[in-house]
Parts: sequence; structure tokens; C-alpha cells
Amino acid sequence: MSAAGTPVFLDAASGEPMDPVAREAYLAALEDGWADPDRLYREGRRARMLLDAAREAVAEVLRARPDETVFTTSGTAALHLAVAGLAQGRSRVSRRIVTSAVEHSAVLHAAEYTAARLGGEHVAVAVTRLGRLRVEEFAQALRGGAALACVQHANHEVGTVQPVEQAWEACLDAAGQPGGPVALLVDAAAALGRIPPPEHWSALCASARKWGGPAGVGVLAVRKGTRFAAAWPQDEREQGRAPGPVNVPAVLAAAAALRAREAERETVAARQRALVERIRAEVGRTVPDVEIVGDPERRLPHIVTFSCLYAAGEALLLELDRAGFSVSSGSSCTASTLTPSHVLEAMGVISHGNVRVSLPWRITDEEVDRFLAALPTTVARVRAEAPGGVREAGGQPSNGTGAAESRSGAGVPEAVGSGGAEPETVDALGRMCPIPVIELARRIARVPLGATIRVLADDPAARLDIPAWSELRRHSYLGETPVPERGESAVAYLVRREH
Amino acid sequence: MSAAGTPVFLDAASGEPMDPVAREAYLAALEDGWADPDRLYREGRRARMLLDAAREAVAEVLRARPDETVFTTSGTAALHLAVAGLAQGRSRVSRRIVTSAVEHSAVLHAAEYTAARLGGEHVAVAVTRLGRLRVEEFAQALRGGAALACVQHANHEVGTVQPVEQAWEACLDAAGQPGGPVALLVDAAAALGRIPPPEHWSALCASARKWGGPAGVGVLAVRKGTRFAAAWPQDEREQGRAPGPVNVPAVLAAAAALRAREAERETVAARQRALVERIRAEVGRTVPDVEIVGDPERRLPHIVTFSCLYAAGEALLLELDRAGFSVSSGSSCTASTLTPSHVLEAMGVISHGNVRVSLPWRITDEEVDRFLAALPTTVARVRAEAPGGVREAGGQPSNGTGAAESRSGAGVPEAVGSGGAEPETVDALGRMCPIPVIELARRIARVPLGATIRVLADDPAARLDIPAWSELRRHSYLGETPVPERGESAVAYLVRREH
Repeated sequence: MSAAGTPVFLDAASGEPMDPVAREAYLAALEDGWADPDRLYREGRRARMLLDAAREAVAEVLRARPDETVFTTSGTAALHLAVAGLAQGRSRVSRRIVTSAVEHSAVLHAAEYTAARLGGEHVAVAVTRLGRLRVEEFAQALRGGAALACVQHANHEVGTVQPVEQAWEACLDAAGQPGGPVALLVDAAAALGRIPPPEHWSALCASARKWGGPAGVGVLAVRKGTRFAAAWPQDEREQGRAPGPVNVPAVLAAAAALRAREAERETVAARQRALVERIRAEVGRTVPDVEIVGDPERRLPHIVTFSCLYAAGEALLLELDRAGFSVSSGSSCTASTLTPSHVLEAMGVISHGNVRVSLPWRITDEEVDRFLAALPTTVARVRAEAPGGVREAGGQPSNGTGAAESRSGAGVPEAVGSGGAEPETVDALGRMCPIPVIELARRIARVPLGATIRVLADDPAARLDIPAWSELRRHSYLGETPVPERGESAVAYLVRREH
Repeated sequence: MSAAGTPVFLDAASGEPMDPVAREAYLAALEDGWADPDRLYREGRRARMLLDAAREAVAEVLRARPDETVFTTSGTAALHLAVAGLAQGRSRVSRRIVTSAVEHSAVLHAAEYTAARLGGEHVAVAVTRLGRLRVEEFAQALRGGAALACVQHANHEVGTVQPVEQAWEACLDAAGQPGGPVALLVDAAAALGRIPPPEHWSALCASARKWGGPAGVGVLAVRKGTRFAAAWPQDEREQGRAPGPVNVPAVLAAAAALRAREAERETVAARQRALVERIRAEVGRTVPDVEIVGDPERRLPHIVTFSCLYAAGEALLLELDRAGFSVSSGSSCTASTLTPSHVLEAMGVISHGNVRVSLPWRITDEEVDRFLAALPTTVARVRAEAPGGVREAGGQPSNGTGAAESRSGAGVPEAVGSGGAEPETVDALGRMCPIPVIELARRIARVPLGATIRVLADDPAARLDIPAWSELRRHSYLGETPVPERGESAVAYLVRREH
């Protein structure tokens, strides 16, 4: 734990503690709203009345009508039901589902599943290196016909706000297609309560947990006139769009938290925007070899994500935890998953050493100060230690590999003469990220300008990190070739030294 | 409200107020278990630890292994995921889904939906007049091949305990079929915490709300070795069987409530079994023309259901509410739905005037006494008033129609001579239940023994109630014929006077 005080929670985007306002509302509703709102007796009627009021409050924030707004059992459930129901509703028009490549995994899972089920296809549209939807490619994809398009309001991992209005225009422009305008599903989970809700959508989803409400409440709003067909067993509840009983106490708590958040939204956002600005500047200044990812301007006020080159993400996360700071990571090196974050992958940025900081509602300046003070030494410590992923002895990075680098250059020692025509080979087979990149960074400085380095690696993360590092360091990434004689997943990556 | 005191809640089977033990656990978990259990930082690890403990506690009660047990967002979600996942997992063997006809609507919806999706069929097996599965017919249905069979542990509307062990044997006996034994899904939602859990099943579902836990928690246990294939978008959580984040505080509350209930189960069950015994006896003694439905012996300790002939269910429910008693009704006359309870329909019992009493965990003798004291006058009042469903003037039942009847006879005045060959016709077209039955009961007494009455009705509930009344009153139901010249849904029902 941080010597300077109590632990600091910096992963609000995963879900923050329930807001006290929500807690109070929940406890009150356990007294008055526990019954089944479909029942005719007094307890049921009271629950129905409270549920109606909660629905109106949430709909008002979404700028939706109460009868367009249903409650689901989670944000994930809302997204699954929305994707499946909208695609099914327009399946006679098209069986293609177009999404950005950086949607929440719940959208991508639902799009893949639904497209496969309907015998259609899921098209994931590329984003820029800042994580922003490429609107022209999106519009182009819609011109091929689509039942449904999905664009998040803002990205949950890097904070980039998406051009939802332009996406909406592109959906309208598709009106020339058979079936008219494409339905647009906006996933507002990361954004609601942080920035004003989007104006135009066919359907909108959100998750109470992200706005300080309880777990177990999602929202699905579907504009009147939008075709929607149940694609999962349903009942008569929530307009046949969300099966099972409504959790009335949790919905009341969710509504209370959302109202509280909306009332304070602008004040809190301004303060957090400035704090994130400071984190972006300080991290860039105090941590060497760091890539700050996501749009610096068009972003959520509370999320900042950066990648510490040559550091293993899981080690960094655990070291920060030990120092008293809870952050998230999209790194491929985390224990729970060996796949790197699909968001970082789609952006083409470094996927190792990744840290996402997302500020909870009640964060203080002092807590951010403590984090900024602890970060540089924590990163240096992780870099100095052997990365957790090394499976063989030898080839450790020199202590402070990264720290010794300058931020502007390639960050490695001067080149030593070596002018052979055969590319110099770095053998990082059997070694996990970030070792291949560390070795590449060390060796590229020793080859002449214009010479090529060949990195042998079998960790799949290398496929992202070597091109991403090359672009970041302004060397030329020349491509990859399989090396079957060195193993089934052995790949040679070629990088040319440019400066 | 009852003059004798505070309102009495008698609809525990719909969900009772959260148990104080669960409330405490929830509040504690809001402090310690609010974080995402998949995160590596301290808050996440703590949530994971608590979740693991809750899973062990629940699995132990179910006599399942923790790694067989996943949490869903409701009992409904558990049933939907179970039916779809089990049927999908064995869809190469068979695409038939066999259920009892009295399963919870969530099972029936999922079975219909899944069978249609897989291009198979849903077979609903008949029950006896006591609501008990006809095991021979069930076994016969399995012999036609089945991916999946669903049998509830006990019925949620009438309390009848099902022969789950015999159903299991029948599933095993189907081993000669290609694909081996049929998977058996047991819906334990109504029974768990009230009677010992069943011993044999392939999958078991339950709902925390029914055992005094919070809303928003279902349980799905699947025995190791049971084929299960996701039939809905999934993620890496809960073994890929229940998508979306686990609501850790609610799960902890659910586990606490279940442990508390199990610890007291036998004591409470014995007490409630005696109370229900008393209700059955007293209602039969003090309310004329009442049919008590469900198995009198093999039943849940806390549920008793009866139908008050010649009374409209909704009016009865509202009148009881006014008197301070909250009960449920499977009657076709309730406002929220015009379809009669599929359970009462499958049992072939009267579907109007239905009252389900289900005792909450902490019911007192005094509360039951008050209910029993108030019931006879309440029923008499409802019978005396015009039923709410009458759409035309005239033909009101005489005051106290029912109350004037003897329990043993047909309950109507002496027959008056009328010996024509043409059946006497009761025209109840345009009139809602229970009017057609009231008119039938009044008129049958005026025709000679062996003569036939023809009841014209267009309320769909008549299709259930006229045969059910005839059987109850030991007259002969001779069948129905459409009467298109009197309207699209006009039907003539023929009943012969037998005594």
C-alpha cells in the first residue's frame, strides 16, 4: 500500500463503488419496491409506481420516451438483446452487421454470433491510431447493405469519443438502399453520465454500474418505429424486449445515481478533464518511453491510457497495486487472457505495458498527485526486473533499458558497425512480450542506417507490438514471414533502421 | 386494510421481501465485493474471494460442485440459458425438447423458441388433475428421441411436487436411443429452500428471489460431462455459460439467504405444512363451492391454491387486497393477461376465481388466522356483486349464488320440468368468465336428468371452465362445436345433467 495513504482506485471504467445516493435508494426500495410490479395487490402497485418513476427519470436523461426505454439485467444483456433484436428485425433487408472495430466485446460477440446465426456477416470498420472510427470506411461498408450499424459513443479503453453524428448521417445516407436508413445502435456505456448523451440513434444501450449505480441494471432504449424482433425467448415484460423480472430496487438505485451524476456532470467533467490533462502531460514528462494512446481532444473526461514500452503489463499492474493504485490494463501480458486488447490492436498501438487510468466520480487532486508521484519509479522498477514472460534464461534487458533512452530518438545506444547484406537476426522464440520488442530496440541501434533486422518470435503479441513499435519509433516495418523450420508459430518480422 | 391489523403478504412464491440476512450481506459486499472479480488489483481479488465463497455455499446446498455452478442474472435467465444450451449441445442427437405441460413459462418459452430455432419440436407432456406429471406419457415421449427433458421439482402455482426421480429413470432408460440418456433439466425455483433439493439431474436452475435473496440472481448448475453449447453470445465469464458481469454483492446476499433458509428449512417447512393443512381444511369448510387444487400430499409446504366457483379472479384478488391480504391468482380474469394460467389449464381444473396463497418465510399463525377469518365474507361479497367482466346488462347471478349451494350437490336449485329434445340453450355470448359457468350451473338444475344444456360462449376461458366445472360437478361434458353464424369465436358447449 502507498506509504502516503489509503489505496487509490483508478479503474472507474470497470465499475465504481455504488454511489451513496444509489445505496440509499436501494435500501428504501427494499422496503417499498421489493414486490413484483406486475401484481395487482398493494405491494405490487407500489413497486409499479416506483418503477414507472425510475423509468421516466432514466428516459429523460437519455432524451428518450419512457415507452422506448426498457431495463435489462446488465449492460452486456442490453447490448446482446439490442444487436440480436435489431438485426433480426431487419433481417429481411440485410444480414450484414457493421460495427467499429473497437466496440465493447459484448457488441462484437453479439455481432459475430448474430451474423453467423442469420447466415450473414459481421464487418468491423477500422479506426485511426487515435481510436476514432474511420467514417468514410464506415459509410462505404453501409453502402454494401446492412441491417444494423453499431458505434459506441466513446471508447471504454482509451476514451476516444466517436463521431456518432457522422455515423448517423451515414446511416441516413444508406436510405437509398433497399430497406431505407440503417438502424444505428449506440453503446453509451462508457460515456453516459460523463458527457452529454448523443442526440441521434435508433437504439441506445448503457450500464448502471458505469455511472455509479448498482450491478445488475442495463438500459436499452429503442426509438419508436425501429424494427425490433425478439431473437431470444421473451415474455410479456419490458415490451417483450428483456425477459425476466425487473429488479425494481436496483433500477431505482440506478435512476437515483444517474440523476445525481447528470446534475453534477459538467462540474465533475471539467475538473476531471483537467486532471486527465495533467496526467497526460506528467506521464509524458516523467516516464520515459511511454506512448499515450487515444484522442487527446475528443475524449471522455475521465479516461487516460498509456503504454510503457519494454514493461510487461501484468507486472506493472501488480507493482502499481502493491504501491496502492488500482488500474486496468489492455496488455496482452495480463494473466486473465493471452489475447491483447482488441482495441489497442485495432488502433495499431503498442499493446504491452499498457495502463488505463479511469477516474471515479469522487477522485481527489491529492489522489492523482500520489499516483503521478509513484508512477515513474514503479515503471522503472518493472523495467529493471526480468519481465514475467521470459521462459528461457539470458537476454534480460539491461537495468533501466527504457529509462536510459531519450524520448525523441530510438532510445537505444549508438550503432556499432555491421554492414553485412544478410539481415541481422534477433532470436526471441519462446519469449513473451515485451522481450521481442526490447531485443529489437537494443539491436536496431547496432546496425547501420538502412539495414534490416529480422526478429524471430512466436508470442502472438509480437505481431502487434513490432509494427506498432516501428511506427512509434519511425523505423520501417517491412512485413512478416512464417519460419516453419523453427516451429509452428514461429514468425520472422522485418524492420529497417531509418535514423 | 384489515381492521384486525397490518396487511398480510401471502404471495411468497412470486418473491418475498429480501431476508434481513441477505440485506446485511449485500451491504457488507457493497464495501468489500463491489469490484470486478476478474481484475487483478486488491479490490478485484477481494471480490473474487467473496464470489468463490458464495459459489461454494450455493453449490453445497444444491449438492453440486462449485465448478458446476454458475450465476445468472435471474431465474428466468438461468432457465433460458439452460434450455437453449442443453438443447444446442445435444442437437446432433435430437431436436426434440420434452417438458411437462406445467413448467414455468420461462421453460415453455425457451423450449418453444429453441425447438423452432433448431427446426425441432417441443412436446408438452400431460399432467393429472392434481398437476402431477404423467410419468408413463413422459417416458413414452422420450422414446421418440429427445435432446432434453425439463421437469420442475415442484409446481410454482399449485405446489405439486413432481416425480423427478421417476423422470430421471425415464431419461436413463432412453439410453438405448442414439445419444444415450436424455439430459434432464430440473427447475427447482419454487422448491429450493422449501424441500430437500433433488438428487439426480443433468442441470438444475433456481432463483434467489424465491428463497429470500435479492432480485437479479439466478443459478444454473450443469453436471460435469453434460453436453452444453452456448446458444447466445457469451464471454469468458461463468464458464462461458452466463454472459455479462457477475453481480457479486447480490450473489453474496443470495448465498447468505440460502444458507439461512437451509439451516431452518425443516422447522419452517413442518410449521408451514401444518398451516397449509389448516388452510385447505378451513377453506373447504367455510367457503362454499370451492375447488382446492394441487396434490394434497406430495406438495410444497407453503403453497395452497383454490378456485372459488362463480367468482371473478381479479375481483376476488382486489377485494382481498382491500381487506389487507396480498395473494396471487392464476385466473383468466386478471387484468394483466387474458390467457388463463397454463398450469390450471393443463390440470383441467376451474380457472376462474383462483387464489394462490404462498406463505412467506416469517408468516405467523395469527396472520393465517386473520386470512381465514376474512376469506368467506370476501368471497361472498365478490359473488354477490356483478362480475367485472360482464359486457352486457342482465343475467346477473343471484346474490349469494354460490353461498346458497350445498358442497355435495350441483349447488343449484331444484330442476324445473322441461323435457324437450332440443337442448336448452344458455346464451352467454359476449360475456366473460365466470358468467358462462354461472349461467350453466343455474340452468342445469332446471332441466330433467339426462337432458343436455348447450352453452353459447365466446370467452376463451369457457373452453377450460365448462369442462372443468362439469367434471367437478359430475355432469358429462359432451364436447364443443363452433357456431360461426353467431360470431367468429362463438362456440357451443354441450353438458348433460347426470344427477
